[in-house]
Amino acid sequence: MDRTQAKLLRALMKQPLSFWQLVGKQDDAIPGYIDALKTLKIKGYIEAKGDLIAVTKDGKDYARTNGIEKEESMMCPTCSATGVKPRGWLKDIMPEYETLAKGRPEVTAEFDQGVVPLVKNLDRIAYIYERGDLENKNIFILGDDDLLSIGLALTGKCRRITVVEIDKRVNRFIRKVIKEKGWTNVEVYDYDARDPVPEELRGKFDVFITDPVETVEGMKLFYSRCCEALRGKSCSGYFGISHFESGLAKWMGVEKDLLRMNLVITDILRDFNNYLLTGERIVEKGFRIVTESPFDLKAPDFAWYRSTFFRVEAVKKPRPLITERVEWARELYFDEDTFVALP
Amino acid sequence: MDRTQAKLLRALMKQPLSFWQLVGKQDDAIPGYIDALKTLKIKGYIEAKGDLIAVTKDGKDYARTNGIEKEESMMCPTCSATGVKPRGWLKDIMPEYETLAKGRPEVTAEFDQGVVPLVKNLDRIAYIYERGDLENKNIFILGDDDLLSIGLALTGKCRRITVVEIDKRVNRFIRKVIKEKGWTNVEVYDYDARDPVPEELRGKFDVFITDPVETVEGMKLFYSRCCEALRGKSCSGYFGISHFESGLAKWMGVEKDLLRMNLVITDILRDFNNYLLTGERIVEKGFRIVTESPFDLKAPDFAWYRSTFFRVEAVKKPRPLITERVEWARELYFDEDTFVALP
Repeated sequence: MDRTQAKLLRALMKQPLSFWQLVGKQDDAIPGYIDALKTLKIKGYIEAKGDLIAVTKDGKDYARTNGIEKEESMMCPTCSATGVKPRGWLKDIMPEYETLAKGRPEVTAEFDQGVVPLVKNLDRIAYIYERGDLENKNIFILGDDDLLSIGLALTGKCRRITVVEIDKRVNRFIRKVIKEKGWTNVEVYDYDARDPVPEELRGKFDVFITDPVETVEGMKLFYSRCCEALRGKSCSGYFGISHFESGLAKWMGVEKDLLRMNLVITDILRDFNNYLLTGERIVEKGFRIVTESPFDLKAPDFAWYRSTFFRVEAVKKPRPLITERVEWARELYFDEDTFVALP
Repeated sequence: MDRTQAKLLRALMKQPLSFWQLVGKQDDAIPGYIDALKTLKIKGYIEAKGDLIAVTKDGKDYARTNGIEKEESMMCPTCSATGVKPRGWLKDIMPEYETLAKGRPEVTAEFDQGVVPLVKNLDRIAYIYERGDLENKNIFILGDDDLLSIGLALTGKCRRITVVEIDKRVNRFIRKVIKEKGWTNVEVYDYDARDPVPEELRGKFDVFITDPVETVEGMKLFYSRCCEALRGKSCSGYFGISHFESGLAKWMGVEKDLLRMNLVITDILRDFNNYLLTGERIVEKGFRIVTESPFDLKAPDFAWYRSTFFRVEAVKKPRPLITERVEWARELYFDEDTFVALP
């Protein structure tokens, strides 16, 4: 029995779970997760039980004779294994952050958007602060449907915050908030990552933050653009990569690219970020996660989608691997692992 | 002001700290830490205050005008930012673990030993369990002055635990415990990492755990030996690398080696491990951390030394970069960053 099947079984030995709860109990990409579900179902080890998936008697017997006991979580209950707990000046920004974010644009699959809850943005800011990458820094954000820029600006600790984003609805929204708050150190560019970074933004930033598309070439493109924005040695970057849509072979490709860019990986925090990929649109969009599932699915009602949080730091001048304009279409967003994106 | 100096200042703005407390407030290697201390002292921003280091009025003025406020920790108070909290069957082993570990050999600088507290071993086991790498697994431990094998055996969840270790005192001790407990699935080899892995151990393990020496070549050697012990694809490995004795340029070298070995990096948990490098021996040994400090040092009285916890997973058959015997002497243990090792 492989790692993924064993993890699913031990989670189900504890209690029946929904398809969406169960996917977070394992680290394989969604195709591997679905294969594992299919295998366990065919073997008679798991079955549908109402809207949930449950282990059968055969499954329990198999698990016990193979040293798999029911799961006992060892994750920290206080921080949900993120390691951070926003407090003080950071926690204090939350009420205003919520007010300012009201009326934000709906997410769109056109740009493979999935939004991090505002409270999770606080966790990210806490981590960035802990690493010394917040105070007095120039921060470059490639893609900001999460509205992280607004949270960063509310801390009052960054020198400059620059958002470059393709979705003009998001940009209009952030610009409206900037105007309302009178922020002079926050700016927004209409920007498509297929284009080179605007001349005036190159080499100007201490930190980049991005949540890239989930294809290897797409990530190479995103990190390359971010590299161009950085000043040089000892600048840093933050981004999420999911297990769900990027198997470890893809991670390998991405990590090799990062090292080639002179970016050393300093932190990898498993499943740190979660995303509000919820509601009927998920089951109705025709995503492969739904069409290929061996169990009938109801719409997910919690932020089940997760990504692992990476930090990188430049050990010498960052070296973008792509500098020219690229003529890519949907392949930017879509490959054989991307089961929550549209072809 | 660079990242390291800024981090030291913000920590000292909060409160005066000892040299040993302060080193954990920054992520540079010890040579960089000491340079930063020297620079801040020469500029008149910090000064000795009894046994502690304190920020001066000039230092405070400088910090404030440069956007550096006193530190407010955002780390989780429950898990000290490790993300795990041992409970249930794992927590329950602690009393017996403490009893069994009594009378363990004193650490020796001959093998660059530094021992992880037993309670920290539980954190490591919790993390390994969470990742699905404990139950029913064959575990290969290269170097076990930490007595991790005894903790793993007490969980009763591993199929096989094999320790290979150079220090015969440690091996005698573990063998005594094995005999006392009647464990039949735990074994210990007298083994020098300069030698090839014993024939009968090659390709037999699901998981390796090691806490390598802190030189790039030494790490390459340790991981290569561990690779040979692994069965193949999807096997995993755990180890610590410190910031203190390995600057990020060294991390870069190590990460490149890992990827070349077909090991993708899945988790990097900053400062997860701590070590009992305490007592008079630390200040009396002639370590460079003491001889090059710009402040007089008292012996450290807490587990100040830390390492970052890595997990790797094989995306295809692991490929050792070194397979033959190597004729290395102290360079295995010592380079320009290793300020807590002997030449």
